[in-house]
Amino acid sequence: MSAEAFLGDFHHVATIGATPNNGVDRQAATEDDRRTRDWFRAFAAERGWETRVDGIGNLFALLTWRAGAKYVLIGSHLDSQPLGGRFDGAYGVIAALHAAERIATRVAAGSAPPEFNLAVVNWFNEEGGRFPPSIMGSSVYAGIKNHDEMLHVRDLSGTTVAEALQAIGYLGRDEPPSPAGYAEIHIEQGRILEREGSTIGAVDSSWYTQKLDIEVLGEQSHTGATAMADRRDALVAAARIVLMVQDVTNDFEPEVLVSSVGQLTLEPNSPIVVPRRVHLVADLRANSPEVVKAARATLLTQIEDVARQHNMTINVQDFDIRENQYYPGAGVELTEKVAADLGMEARRMQTMAGHDSVAMNRIVPSVMVFIPSVGGVSHCEREFSRDEDMTAGVDVLTGITWELLTGALQEKNHT
Amino acid sequence: MSAEAFLGDFHHVATIGATPNNGVDRQAATEDDRRTRDWFRAFAAERGWETRVDGIGNLFALLTWRAGAKYVLIGSHLDSQPLGGRFDGAYGVIAALHAAERIATRVAAGSAPPEFNLAVVNWFNEEGGRFPPSIMGSSVYAGIKNHDEMLHVRDLSGTTVAEALQAIGYLGRDEPPSPAGYAEIHIEQGRILEREGSTIGAVDSSWYTQKLDIEVLGEQSHTGATAMADRRDALVAAARIVLMVQDVTNDFEPEVLVSSVGQLTLEPNSPIVVPRRVHLVADLRANSPEVVKAARATLLTQIEDVARQHNMTINVQDFDIRENQYYPGAGVELTEKVAADLGMEARRMQTMAGHDSVAMNRIVPSVMVFIPSVGGVSHCEREFSRDEDMTAGVDVLTGITWELLTGALQEKNHT
Repeated sequence: MSAEAFLGDFHHVATIGATPNNGVDRQAATEDDRRTRDWFRAFAAERGWETRVDGIGNLFALLTWRAGAKYVLIGSHLDSQPLGGRFDGAYGVIAALHAAERIATRVAAGSAPPEFNLAVVNWFNEEGGRFPPSIMGSSVYAGIKNHDEMLHVRDLSGTTVAEALQAIGYLGRDEPPSPAGYAEIHIEQGRILEREGSTIGAVDSSWYTQKLDIEVLGEQSHTGATAMADRRDALVAAARIVLMVQDVTNDFEPEVLVSSVGQLTLEPNSPIVVPRRVHLVADLRANSPEVVKAARATLLTQIEDVARQHNMTINVQDFDIRENQYYPGAGVELTEKVAADLGMEARRMQTMAGHDSVAMNRIVPSVMVFIPSVGGVSHCEREFSRDEDMTAGVDVLTGITWELLTGALQEKNHT
Repeated sequence: MSAEAFLGDFHHVATIGATPNNGVDRQAATEDDRRTRDWFRAFAAERGWETRVDGIGNLFALLTWRAGAKYVLIGSHLDSQPLGGRFDGAYGVIAALHAAERIATRVAAGSAPPEFNLAVVNWFNEEGGRFPPSIMGSSVYAGIKNHDEMLHVRDLSGTTVAEALQAIGYLGRDEPPSPAGYAEIHIEQGRILEREGSTIGAVDSSWYTQKLDIEVLGEQSHTGATAMADRRDALVAAARIVLMVQDVTNDFEPEVLVSSVGQLTLEPNSPIVVPRRVHLVADLRANSPEVVKAARATLLTQIEDVARQHNMTINVQDFDIRENQYYPGAGVELTEKVAADLGMEARRMQTMAGHDSVAMNRIVPSVMVFIPSVGGVSHCEREFSRDEDMTAGVDVLTGITWELLTGALQEKNHT
């Protein structure tokens, strides 16, 4: 077991698209995304593993012991947010490559070939910063997002997903491997594990989340010549909404609801013109759907008041609603067992963030594992996880993968 | 005097870059800006007037009766805000072309040639929406902005002023005419004339104005996974500042101070990332410098409080400070006299907005005239002025121009 080899690879990949403050900037289907993919493909090629690229840019490395058998998939994503952290996603892919290598070594050394084959996956565009929605590649793979529709999504400069993938040479035509199960390891992005001194999180469910798409329609006028009483300033109304989205979290106990406005654009965005239109997106998340729904109802009432007071039209639409997802209990127990065998205790927890495993869990039994995030921040250059936690996670992922390969989470009807 | 000819031309030019709701979108050095310039040049060519384009894209039509004599300049600007109105600027240029034609007819009919020559001018980039700062062409002509620096100003896509002018064929090398005086007619953009039932405004001074450039530096994090207490959301702090910029006007009597945030951008502007940086521009204007300075002081104190409460750095810089400018009293009296001769009363007033005449008044005696704006709104498609007010304005501008050509505002030392 070479922890050093893993760490060497991890810290090497962090140099691709590196930013001045120790982060990375590797948005989906950019040149730096291509470089991480080329690195992944070289890793597989050196070990004689076949690679495939499907029609939405998902990249697979296949370890095939039994022709015709299904594949256990393990992985995460190598793309990042703009000025993002070097751990989010990349850790899970590189951990999966090293777990696969250890398993290949074990089989080559004489272990009986497992029941299933193994594939390491780098999902396309988990972050969604350049091409919304997020979790794109795994959602298309899982059949819960339309492939053709996703290929036509455009970034702010008008480039489509298809064009961007073509440009970096990763719009593939390969048949993706057929799945038997899925496992993913990821940084927590919160501070629960750090606070409790745990190394491993066994994720049992995902939070309920939804977004609100809000369009504020005021009227453009001159910032100098128009009397204040004659202005219908869309940005003033939008600013009130931004504060409401923040303040609604105070209706609940701390950490029960999180919400922020991450995207906001105004038109015409000229220093001497009162804005006519503001478009903003609010993101609401809680473990309880009732909490999100109560916050949404409060916001809708408050936004109606703002529209009335400012004599404006404000359009609000729900989108990207994600129900709670429950990972199989047997997978959570498997994580606990593997961790215990390695002398660690796994803490059961939820994920507030979305992950590729949430999409995969819709079609096959999936296991989600966390390691600690120092300070609980992510999607920023300051994101940090310790080497020893990362290598412990690789050990746990290797153990889980071996169990999945030998059928641990399969329905018993085929035994 | 053909009011119909003027109106025909005015309403024709309004079709260039026309928008669905009766506005125009002709930002500086765009293809539609080029089309208005070509129209201006054709108007001059049909009448045998020489045209010149200087090194910052100002376009002049020259009526030269006395070789070597200086020129009285009359005009305004044909560029617009994005989704702007069809009156702002264009009215003044087309009114000036028709005033010039009437004067040319009068001279051709046997009047003694006036003391000065006449030039109609279409100033480059008065609006500044694409290439800030505004009032660019006349400020370079007047020597109060640096020519080379302005040529290097970039729009949001990275194109420079020089490149954009070159692309539409209006980066000239002609010597601009040497000025003896300036007159400009423009829509009021407020509702004083409308409220009082006056047709003509004689502008005696401009308001004191300044902008604040504000940079809010928070920290990027995950909108889902980061606990609320761990977020340092630059947009929440910026939203509070937007509301403060609005609320500070309530410290004074109505219409004494106007202020708005017209420009705001966030980074990274991704729906699932808490914003790390917001840049915004506040525009403060009042007749009294003391009012603007008091509002600025209040805002700086409040912004310091926001920075402290949110644990963020907020950088604030003053820029684009414009002192009150006083037009020559003799020019105001001239407007009153010409209006009275035509049976109208001119109302003395200030301009809240900046104009090319403010720049020109720094170097030659300048006269600024307003006609009513229905509803007092401008920089929007709903901007409107009545045909009868526009044609009355052309008559007044013609009278003023004739007086300027015969030396009405010159220092008496040369008589």
